[in-house]
Amino acid sequence: MAYPQTTFPLTTFPSPTFISRRRDVVHSTTLLYQLNVLKSTGRYDAFKLEWHPSYRDKPDVWPVPNHLFWDSDVAKWIEGACYFLQREANPLIDGAVKELVAMIRSAQQADGYLNIHFTVVEPHKRFTNLRDLHELYNAGHLIEAALAHSQCYGDEGEGLMEPVLRYVDLLCQTFGPAPEQKHGYPGHPEIELALLRLYGETQNPKHLVLAEYFIAERGNPTGQDGRHYYDVEAEARGDREHERPVYFPKSRSYWYQQAHEPIVDQQTVEGHSVRAMYLLTAVADLVRIEGPSSTKSADRTKALQRLWRNMTEKKMYLTGGIGAQRQWEGFGIDYFLPSGTDEGGCYAETCAAIGVMMLAERLLQLDLDGKYADVMELCFYNAVMTGMASNGKQFTYVNQLASSDSDLSRRAEWFTCACCPPNVTRLLGYIGGYLWSFRTDENEESVAVDVHMYSSATLSIPVGDSVVEIEQRSNWPWEGKIEFTIRNPAEVATNIKLRIPGWAATWQAPLTQPKISPDLPNAHADKGYISLPPEWLKTHSKFHLEIPLTARFISPHPYTNQNIVALARGPIVYCVEDFDNAWVDDHFKNLVLDPACRVTESTISTPEVGESYIGLTAHNAASHMVADDQLAPHMRVESNYSTQKPGVEQLHFIPYALRDNRGGKGHMRVGIRRKQ
Amino acid sequence: MAYPQTTFPLTTFPSPTFISRRRDVVHSTTLLYQLNVLKSTGRYDAFKLEWHPSYRDKPDVWPVPNHLFWDSDVAKWIEGACYFLQREANPLIDGAVKELVAMIRSAQQADGYLNIHFTVVEPHKRFTNLRDLHELYNAGHLIEAALAHSQCYGDEGEGLMEPVLRYVDLLCQTFGPAPEQKHGYPGHPEIELALLRLYGETQNPKHLVLAEYFIAERGNPTGQDGRHYYDVEAEARGDREHERPVYFPKSRSYWYQQAHEPIVDQQTVEGHSVRAMYLLTAVADLVRIEGPSSTKSADRTKALQRLWRNMTEKKMYLTGGIGAQRQWEGFGIDYFLPSGTDEGGCYAETCAAIGVMMLAERLLQLDLDGKYADVMELCFYNAVMTGMASNGKQFTYVNQLASSDSDLSRRAEWFTCACCPPNVTRLLGYIGGYLWSFRTDENEESVAVDVHMYSSATLSIPVGDSVVEIEQRSNWPWEGKIEFTIRNPAEVATNIKLRIPGWAATWQAPLTQPKISPDLPNAHADKGYISLPPEWLKTHSKFHLEIPLTARFISPHPYTNQNIVALARGPIVYCVEDFDNAWVDDHFKNLVLDPACRVTESTISTPEVGESYIGLTAHNAASHMVADDQLAPHMRVESNYSTQKPGVEQLHFIPYALRDNRGGKGHMRVGIRRKQ
Repeated sequence: MAYPQTTFPLTTFPSPTFISRRRDVVHSTTLLYQLNVLKSTGRYDAFKLEWHPSYRDKPDVWPVPNHLFWDSDVAKWIEGACYFLQREANPLIDGAVKELVAMIRSAQQADGYLNIHFTVVEPHKRFTNLRDLHELYNAGHLIEAALAHSQCYGDEGEGLMEPVLRYVDLLCQTFGPAPEQKHGYPGHPEIELALLRLYGETQNPKHLVLAEYFIAERGNPTGQDGRHYYDVEAEARGDREHERPVYFPKSRSYWYQQAHEPIVDQQTVEGHSVRAMYLLTAVADLVRIEGPSSTKSADRTKALQRLWRNMTEKKMYLTGGIGAQRQWEGFGIDYFLPSGTDEGGCYAETCAAIGVMMLAERLLQLDLDGKYADVMELCFYNAVMTGMASNGKQFTYVNQLASSDSDLSRRAEWFTCACCPPNVTRLLGYIGGYLWSFRTDENEESVAVDVHMYSSATLSIPVGDSVVEIEQRSNWPWEGKIEFTIRNPAEVATNIKLRIPGWAATWQAPLTQPKISPDLPNAHADKGYISLPPEWLKTHSKFHLEIPLTARFISPHPYTNQNIVALARGPIVYCVEDFDNAWVDDHFKNLVLDPACRVTESTISTPEVGESYIGLTAHNAASHMVADDQLAPHMRVESNYSTQKPGVEQLHFIPYALRDNRGGKGHMRVGIRRKQ
Repeated sequence: MAYPQTTFPLTTFPSPTFISRRRDVVHSTTLLYQLNVLKSTGRYDAFKLEWHPSYRDKPDVWPVPNHLFWDSDVAKWIEGACYFLQREANPLIDGAVKELVAMIRSAQQADGYLNIHFTVVEPHKRFTNLRDLHELYNAGHLIEAALAHSQCYGDEGEGLMEPVLRYVDLLCQTFGPAPEQKHGYPGHPEIELALLRLYGETQNPKHLVLAEYFIAERGNPTGQDGRHYYDVEAEARGDREHERPVYFPKSRSYWYQQAHEPIVDQQTVEGHSVRAMYLLTAVADLVRIEGPSSTKSADRTKALQRLWRNMTEKKMYLTGGIGAQRQWEGFGIDYFLPSGTDEGGCYAETCAAIGVMMLAERLLQLDLDGKYADVMELCFYNAVMTGMASNGKQFTYVNQLASSDSDLSRRAEWFTCACCPPNVTRLLGYIGGYLWSFRTDENEESVAVDVHMYSSATLSIPVGDSVVEIEQRSNWPWEGKIEFTIRNPAEVATNIKLRIPGWAATWQAPLTQPKISPDLPNAHADKGYISLPPEWLKTHSKFHLEIPLTARFISPHPYTNQNIVALARGPIVYCVEDFDNAWVDDHFKNLVLDPACRVTESTISTPEVGESYIGLTAHNAASHMVADDQLAPHMRVESNYSTQKPGVEQLHFIPYALRDNRGGKGHMRVGIRRKQ
């Protein structure tokens, strides 16, 4: 069963690129930095099950105790560490992994239960609040950690898989359709996708059954004693009707966790973004496992496509970020996509964009369509990568498209809810699995490779007794020429598909088509992928693909009422920062930009940025707006764009992912007001 | 003490105008219609203190029982009825007033207490939830009803004033700074402005003191036992920390009722719009009563100006409507002013715009500045008058600037929360008091009149033994020529100020200045008012003012991100409706309009509209936008305004106040997307 988390070891990054440099930083700095934070905050030792003074703190986000998901912070660190240990040994990290695993093993209860809070703080409250508390979420991350650990260390001796399997046994007993079982499902999806990956390893039907149960039962209005499980659960806790979590605008806001109705009936994507993405990722994987032709799969596939479309067409920012509403860290209504706090809100949580990538990757397995890969890549290079500073030690949780006085464009050292940093870390650990998918046929006589993302990387696929190597060399995303070398000693029939990004085929100026050299007869993109058939590859073991990368202006949908223009080049979305435009004092709020302007490129090498990048400059294109509000609430139509300050001769843009690495005032904007 | 509610009888409307036609409808239809609704819903008999089956209903807006403010529905009806009875006798209405007053008198408890819910349903819960429950609000409306009743019927016999004064005595004992008193203040302001008006009649210092106490104590963080009153009150009720009203996004959202801090410290206007307006109206009146030179008055005046500016510059719709957020029926952040539900929300409650008028009128008493009157008039002719159908029997509560599938542009018969219809009714009852303010000097030898609004109306001011009559004749708001006749038999020195609307002085196309004929030497507007001195008036008892009324395009502030244009003419803001533009099928959402177009006017007489009005037509100015979202979330900048449907040769506009009188699909929009 192919998952990026299992296939990534077959991909190496032999020469420096954006991706490899990020991985290097994580390996050299971030993992250890995060380890220190785990230690200093008390997370590291938490599985010793001793009392920690912070356990008494008032929750920042009632009713979720601040330490509730410490289990998952540790598990995600272990997972990321195991990915990187497979690349290169590191005694410090190895030692920490071993120590943590020992503590986790020792924390397991006799019946298999394994959870810090519900052992140390509220031992009699197990499984009494699936809606709000991250019990099963933590279990899911433990499963993922166990899978990574098993892959790295094997399963002999004192591993993580054995206790996790015992815990899962308990969960399989506890949850299910039988009268004595709880007909519940987690408030924060995660365990579903973890159980499916576990099933991929164990082939134990119980694991698939439990994942399927959680997915199918979710949102059942009559699932427990003829009522919604969360209602019954709340009543049993003695909650009052109008006593509600801070993230519920109203009582029973079950759309927050996509449990307001069965998934197959949901028409639009709602609620907490990360929950939604983890849930839909599991649904997509379930369809893949069960096969697309069952009735359930048909309904689930329709739902996935419907929700994907709603998300990408109506609820996604230019950067790939999702989630406009801070209160529930999630989706607003269709087309509600303000750039920042002072315009109505922008959330775009780092973890959510990682979730989009996960879902996109799963959907690509069901249907090879470049539209999924375009969004996956958009998220990676923008909404995700903006989440980590080039030095690997500061992060963002919220990724707005414009700064404001109350929310500057700044990264921070750590967060009480620390889900994003280790999520970025583990993603970079197994990112090799996102670059391409491959399948070998049953007889191991042929191999098919779908190339989704470009970099400098080599994929080594075992086929029978041999190895087929697909090597790509490029300076992506800065340059668009990718050189391929195929090494195929046993002459296995090889079929390669290359993704042609949607923006490349239709949107470049001047309009230069992507091209393959040497010439490929009848080259055409089918749903965004060009096929290189085995016959052609036999005689062309070296070839290159050229995707022209030039600056282009983009906008959001007009229904967003954002009359703004932003710059993009290839998969990279740009922003303006005060560091390059020192005159700014208003977060670029009053700037107007004429997209019919000259834009030049230059290669910029600044050590703090960690990367030589292409900077863009718009020439004589920007001026300042002055609004005359004497007759408020009315403005004269002509007065809106008077230009009293001098224009800006050169407006400098930097990739959004590379912002806030050089200091400055924290003034930043992606989309500039368009000149009328 | 001059209030519009007390001076209005001096104004008559001798010939038909917009205002008089509306008053006629209320008199002939609406009052009786509302009376029938009071009867059929159980409100009419509620002061009999019998159980009504609806008292057991679950609250629509927890924790406020649906019937909680029935007291005020009745009181407001009585108030409006008494205003209209002063104009013309009506036995049916008179009979109902008498019957209602008798029931109210009989409902009074021995200690003076007078409230339906807390006598019938929760008699032991008096004054236990000032924050959420409308106890004092109801009392305030009873006071206003008593004042109107007293003015209409005098105070002999079985009046309303006597029981109300006894109730107020109880309140004066209950609330105040003494240790045994409750240091509380109403969640919904209303009683403050009512007490101040009562003080105007009674000159009883207790009434002033209680109003002042409520205003000054509001938001005191340590006012009750060293804590915020609402915290103490909630704890005493046994409320849980996260048990909160549906309109509180978070616990302790005391900004909802402007009680998060003392009023004089509030920097921006927040929360529920009607509460804010009623509160600030009272604050302004308090400043006027106490005189502007006390220290408290200075701080309060600064706060009033600051909050007025914040509201009009950053939180007010083009129609004068206020309130973007449905959840708390109130203000959003600065510049957050979407046009309708599908763009992020628009509330603009009818009652709130009436509240703006009330506040503006009070501020004009403190400082004669046309900016207040401009907003007052803007609200009246748009956000308020749109609240009632021309037939006087349908109303709106929410007044969006654009319809959507979920919220069509439609009025409705009644509402569970029925505050708006009787608010419109009573406003029209005393609207004469808004047209102008006047003062006679102590010796009754001179009179000063400030004319704020135009119509056809006569103001008859008793001066000594004589009467000075100021008569204005016009067809405002459709025509801008107002003819004045001054009748001044005793030759009292008369000074008249005429308001020149801000939009008239600077904004007309072609730019024709308002002018006075016969010529007035050195005519100049001082803060929006032109002075006609006594010497000139002595020799010019007839004169006219011409304010050119031509169509103009207006926009909201660019920071709203609403790149829209709307049409206005004089004080009237226009909209497009499907009735006049039958081709529309998308709420005009995809229409783009070029403001550099030809706009023509025509007088339209349609019986259902109830008024001959000026319709506007934009010629060859409108086309349709098509957005190409193939590469979502990105759009190409050039693709946004492709015009694939044919343009619209004639786009017809109707005044927003006159919408939805002729049937149709309910598609309506005020601000059209501006052509790029």
